[in-house]
Amino acid sequence: MPIRHAEATWTGNLREGNGRMKLGSGYFEGPFTFASRFEEGKGTNPEELVGAAQAGCFSMFLSGQLTKEGFPPKQIHTTATVHLDAGPTISKIILDTTAQVAGIDQAKFQELVDFSKKNCPVSKALTGVDVQVNAKLEK
Amino acid sequence: MPIRHAEATWTGNLREGNGRMKLGSGYFEGPFTFASRFEEGKGTNPEELVGAAQAGCFSMFLSGQLTKEGFPPKQIHTTATVHLDAGPTISKIILDTTAQVAGIDQAKFQELVDFSKKNCPVSKALTGVDVQVNAKLEK
Repeated sequence: MPIRHAEATWTGNLREGNGRMKLGSGYFEGPFTFASRFEEGKGTNPEELVGAAQAGCFSMFLSGQLTKEGFPPKQIHTTATVHLDAGPTISKIILDTTAQVAGIDQAKFQELVDFSKKNCPVSKALTGVDVQVNAKLEK
Repeated sequence: MPIRHAEATWTGNLREGNGRMKLGSGYFEGPFTFASRFEEGKGTNPEELVGAAQAGCFSMFLSGQLTKEGFPPKQIHTTATVHLDAGPTISKIILDTTAQVAGIDQAKFQELVDFSKKNCPVSKALTGVDVQVNAKLEK
């Protein structure tokens, strides 16, 4: 099974310093600061990377489950809303998913959504976070 | 406290489909496929996003701890190695950190490394993963 790489550098102290995060694949390298993490400054932050990973993992996993049950989806779109609360602690991630799937009934769809929320690799990693999914079926 | 956004789209079935993950800040949007996630195909994957988030969060948090104790660092560099094992499950993330810090002794440095590993927000979120840190102090 694969091993992935990433890296980060932080230069200076917490408040005035600045950092960069980079993916091993080379597809992304971006800046972050105290302001881009805890305020509304320009840059990225670890929380939106976690949100993208959770949204991507869930969408892909749900496609796999739907395909396995005989309902290959046309498309699945998921937004992740990541709450960073006092602590600081990532308290909650809300996934809003819209899935275009022909032929499946609502109950079976919801069952596969619940299974994917619980079992996709990123969900299983983020056990310290309350992950919630609102999923809408479009036929 | 801030709320962050991200999104992902998966089009088609698990094996032949393809996806995109995107950060709410707009700093990154990138492609992923079955091959870029589970094999060695071109593209990104959720695991390296999680690795970048963990490396970034840990490095920034350690800077904060060092600053608070009177040892503001010059620079902290961390690589994350993310193991995706059977399941699929993110079983392990290994952080290799090099910190340039003047004046601190090894024992105090290691104490702050251990505290940061345990308490940075991404570590607290990833409680389903065995996170290990190898930290080296450079004066």
